[in-house]
Amino acid sequence: MRNLLMIVSYDGTEYFGFQTQPGGNTVQDHLEAAIMQLTGEVVKIHGSGRTDAGVHARQQPFHVHTDSKIPVDRWRMALNGRLPADIRVTDVREVPLSFHARRLAKRKTYRFTINANRIPDVFTRRYQVHHPGRLNVESMREGLKHLIGTHDYTSFASRHSTKASHVRTIYDAWIEWDQSGSCSGSHEQGIIHIFMTGSGFLQHMVRIIVGTLLQVGEGKRKPEDMKRILEAKDRAAAGPTAESKGLMLWEVLYDEAGDEGTDLLERNETEQ
Amino acid sequence: MRNLLMIVSYDGTEYFGFQTQPGGNTVQDHLEAAIMQLTGEVVKIHGSGRTDAGVHARQQPFHVHTDSKIPVDRWRMALNGRLPADIRVTDVREVPLSFHARRLAKRKTYRFTINANRIPDVFTRRYQVHHPGRLNVESMREGLKHLIGTHDYTSFASRHSTKASHVRTIYDAWIEWDQSGSCSGSHEQGIIHIFMTGSGFLQHMVRIIVGTLLQVGEGKRKPEDMKRILEAKDRAAAGPTAESKGLMLWEVLYDEAGDEGTDLLERNETEQ
Repeated sequence: MRNLLMIVSYDGTEYFGFQTQPGGNTVQDHLEAAIMQLTGEVVKIHGSGRTDAGVHARQQPFHVHTDSKIPVDRWRMALNGRLPADIRVTDVREVPLSFHARRLAKRKTYRFTINANRIPDVFTRRYQVHHPGRLNVESMREGLKHLIGTHDYTSFASRHSTKASHVRTIYDAWIEWDQSGSCSGSHEQGIIHIFMTGSGFLQHMVRIIVGTLLQVGEGKRKPEDMKRILEAKDRAAAGPTAESKGLMLWEVLYDEAGDEGTDLLERNETEQ
Repeated sequence: MRNLLMIVSYDGTEYFGFQTQPGGNTVQDHLEAAIMQLTGEVVKIHGSGRTDAGVHARQQPFHVHTDSKIPVDRWRMALNGRLPADIRVTDVREVPLSFHARRLAKRKTYRFTINANRIPDVFTRRYQVHHPGRLNVESMREGLKHLIGTHDYTSFASRHSTKASHVRTIYDAWIEWDQSGSCSGSHEQGIIHIFMTGSGFLQHMVRIIVGTLLQVGEGKRKPEDMKRILEAKDRAAAGPTAESKGLMLWEVLYDEAGDEGTDLLERNETEQ
């Protein structure tokens, strides 16, 4: 038996998230079907975490055990030939049997994209939320800083979260503001990318943070309110959950050493 | 009666081109339906030209005559509220009744995009053609230069072209090569954008030029072959027609003076 680590990129618009659901039509379902077509094996793949319906992934790792003799360098093209065009395997490598894509994930980065121009862009509309009102991006940057560190993020978690602990660590969070993309005049506000890197994220956590930050940008809340919201440990203290289409799993990093990292097991179980 | 000049941006993936066809489902059909919903008027809009099924537009102008009293600055949002998400009106202004979006168009620019990386990108897959083989971009640049000027472009026109003359002028043509976009290593070739600006383009002209240039990039033809192909005035001398999804109408420019420019009438009638 071999253990293969693969990286998948997908446009989540048409899917009910990464992980298999009773209703079907998930990215995992399509990947497992493609592997079965290729090798004849019924397999269960293990993603780095879940993603909600409509969320995208630039690079999402998963691992799978296989008895297939197909050489590693053949898998990528063979699977892509059996997958829909909005799901692409971008890398395949063999890893030790002890490797686990979810348990050993050390750092995860998400990106949320807001189009703050007057007019939505038809070409990127599936990957960004249109928010044409005036936004104070510097206030949003200031508000975001209050969330960096190790905190109880209950205020920014779905009420349906079943986790015993809502303590997570956000290592870094920053905003990239692209004001060049506008083609229709100088009064445009451009594209705002909000990045967050952490040990793991609770259900809806990035989207609730973004929904609250947008209120800061609109002047409805002050940047320092983010600190007060954290301390409240109450979902009602935060703002609305931003639309899933703006969210993209950007990157997942593993330890070079590859130790078991059992402390990561619980915290990475349920993801955005 | 007023004459309104509007700019429309569309993702052409789902449409049979801009101009109304017997089979329906064109961008023009959707725009006319939205205007009828808004004003109650049955109108015929006049685009700057046609686009083929699957071709996109970043900025395509059209004009329409209306008796509606709705202020000009209300039209954009009112129409966008009545259009599908992949068609957006980005600008509306009142122009003299003598203005004609097709007849007075002076310069048109098209962009064709090739993804030359090993793996297709799921997020831009609808707007680029994936061509993972090795390409000599410098040879393509050299070949493209031979097409600039005033020439008979019969070799690069659809055999179904019904134009009396195939003489057109390409004012400029250039390649923008983005090698930064690749996220999976240093052996990637990046994204190649081919731009062409001209007085007007024959049916399939940009796509046949690109299909032939790709053969130059692959080393199957020499850059100077482009000159020989032009001189042959024979469609069989050129390469295949590249896929429509890679093509985007980038920009259409008009004379500041706004004179009738009747010499442009014929040459702009049928477009890519």
